[in-house]
Amino acid sequence: MHPEIDTPALVIDLDTVRANVDEMARTAARHGVKLRPHVKTHKMPELARMQLDAGATGVTCAKLGEAEIMADAGIDDILLAFPIWGEPKLRRLAALRERARVRVSLDSPDVAAGLARLGGTPVEVLVEVDTGQHRLGRPPGRPTADLVAEIAAIPGIDVAGLLTLAGHAYHSRTERELAETARREGTDLIATAELCARDGIELREISVGCTPTARHVAGVAGVTEIRPGTYIFNDTAMMRLGVATEQTTAARVLTTVVGRPTAERVVLDAGTKSLTSDGSGSPGWIRAAGLPHLRMDFLNEEHGVALLDPESPAELPVGTRLQLIPSHACSVVNLFDHAYGVENGQVTKELRVAARGAVR
Amino acid sequence: MHPEIDTPALVIDLDTVRANVDEMARTAARHGVKLRPHVKTHKMPELARMQLDAGATGVTCAKLGEAEIMADAGIDDILLAFPIWGEPKLRRLAALRERARVRVSLDSPDVAAGLARLGGTPVEVLVEVDTGQHRLGRPPGRPTADLVAEIAAIPGIDVAGLLTLAGHAYHSRTERELAETARREGTDLIATAELCARDGIELREISVGCTPTARHVAGVAGVTEIRPGTYIFNDTAMMRLGVATEQTTAARVLTTVVGRPTAERVVLDAGTKSLTSDGSGSPGWIRAAGLPHLRMDFLNEEHGVALLDPESPAELPVGTRLQLIPSHACSVVNLFDHAYGVENGQVTKELRVAARGAVR
Repeated sequence: MHPEIDTPALVIDLDTVRANVDEMARTAARHGVKLRPHVKTHKMPELARMQLDAGATGVTCAKLGEAEIMADAGIDDILLAFPIWGEPKLRRLAALRERARVRVSLDSPDVAAGLARLGGTPVEVLVEVDTGQHRLGRPPGRPTADLVAEIAAIPGIDVAGLLTLAGHAYHSRTERELAETARREGTDLIATAELCARDGIELREISVGCTPTARHVAGVAGVTEIRPGTYIFNDTAMMRLGVATEQTTAARVLTTVVGRPTAERVVLDAGTKSLTSDGSGSPGWIRAAGLPHLRMDFLNEEHGVALLDPESPAELPVGTRLQLIPSHACSVVNLFDHAYGVENGQVTKELRVAARGAVR
Repeated sequence: MHPEIDTPALVIDLDTVRANVDEMARTAARHGVKLRPHVKTHKMPELARMQLDAGATGVTCAKLGEAEIMADAGIDDILLAFPIWGEPKLRRLAALRERARVRVSLDSPDVAAGLARLGGTPVEVLVEVDTGQHRLGRPPGRPTADLVAEIAAIPGIDVAGLLTLAGHAYHSRTERELAETARREGTDLIATAELCARDGIELREISVGCTPTARHVAGVAGVTEIRPGTYIFNDTAMMRLGVATEQTTAARVLTTVVGRPTAERVVLDAGTKSLTSDGSGSPGWIRAAGLPHLRMDFLNEEHGVALLDPESPAELPVGTRLQLIPSHACSVVNLFDHAYGVENGQVTKELRVAARGAVR
């Protein structure tokens, strides 16, 4: 399997990527909502460009460093879905605003007051709402409507709308529970926007959705924008939630068997420094593509220890190559400087993970 | 706190590093064992040099890429504690052997046969023994002695000794349990080496120990070398095991409060892309230095969500800076291109994480 590259390596099936990108673009178009994919998953301007070419209206970034790299590549419509605080970041944001249309999400008047000092055209912000993840934001309804009013009163700030991330959807146990979480994510925001309208503040953007909820929430009347990220690559977390299959996972870690100390134990040259600890220990958190008889037991930093079912027809001697489907594609991509792009089963290009490590 | 650098950032207290390096060097000297620190923790040639200057006899690396970077910096005695397999890696190993004395660990005749093809002076190998971690290696005693005999019979291979990593020591619940695991790690290897001697194979190296077991196993008669890594920085895992304190943790993530959505909830600008998911959810897996009233709740990729005890005297408004002690220093360092070195409480230098991402 891909003898021309050494292991461990990040391998991206670009045919699967194209299919995933097109499918989500069609979903957004069918529901008449804008698609603003989160680039944290791939961190590559060329894949952001593919998403835009397929119909996305802009991109979402988590950190300024990611946004700067996307702007360097000519991408000019960016949602920075993170509260920007402190002089160094505000200076960078001011420079970024000269190159791109930038919206920023936040959940406090403190952060808004910093943004207001940027001057120039009013800074468009989305107010983050806590629809159940308990990260940033106040609960929907009156608490958020009051916050919106407070922020909208700050000169230099233009509250464009509301934003949420239903991260708690990742804990859904059934398709039905996932759909219900997604529906509530949308309806909670719509109801809150109606309260804001009664307060005299008309919001024009209702921005929602991670990959698990995107396809469900896109259909809620009033939602204007979805922001899935992981869908471009998928991973075992998406498989577990029923929104991906092994066939739609596009980012995999190519690994080699380096030890077979017992008939059962298969030691691989990929550990947490290639796969992260995300999802560690949950059933099937890392899968070997096409090898249902192999179960990951534990990861050390540079070793993966898997157990082979005695029923397995495959023997997996030292030197065998496998493709591992990670638990969380986004953080795995962040471990590699380069990935290998595969088309028609052949490695055709090297892709630079341009925004790897851009945590600031 | 360090206003001259932006967050999140990796900050390394070099005064603490020096104290940690000296303490372990003294421990090794007191017991008359060699110290071969694992560089995976810091990935920086200048810190490897500090360890060598303090008395280490060489370094341990997990991957060829790390070893090449250490050799580039003039380090010429390297244990590559990983089975090297496949032509590209064998070619690199051959080149590395022209610049440094290199030993390689392994647990199979298959891997040894590959190394034997390198030619030149016999390749010195350490045979890995499974003293309870259940990763690479056969159990101590006859199974390993037979493996040693098989490998020693391969022309071009020189079995220098035995190697183990008591990774299972990380699960110890008491100091006594840890000490017992360490003692057994040493005695199991000594007993195995005696079997090998009776088979006519004299082994000259008994190489053991991670940071938790190093200080205990160094005193076992017959042990020749210890290979701790984490001790240079320490982390909350070492604190939990009783081999470090908050004061001896040297690598921390400087972070800023970016949201205070409720009186209890404190949202930080450092998530798994600065801290990894290692140890996630175990009690106190990430600690805020000097802030016992703050408890990490969960991490997303770019957000840390912590909960503040109502008893806390600190209010932690947006903009407050904190230092987070990670669960696992080694994998956190691997997320950053640069770290900031602190001496006497002041940032005095930028350190490049030269071997970051060197997974091949």
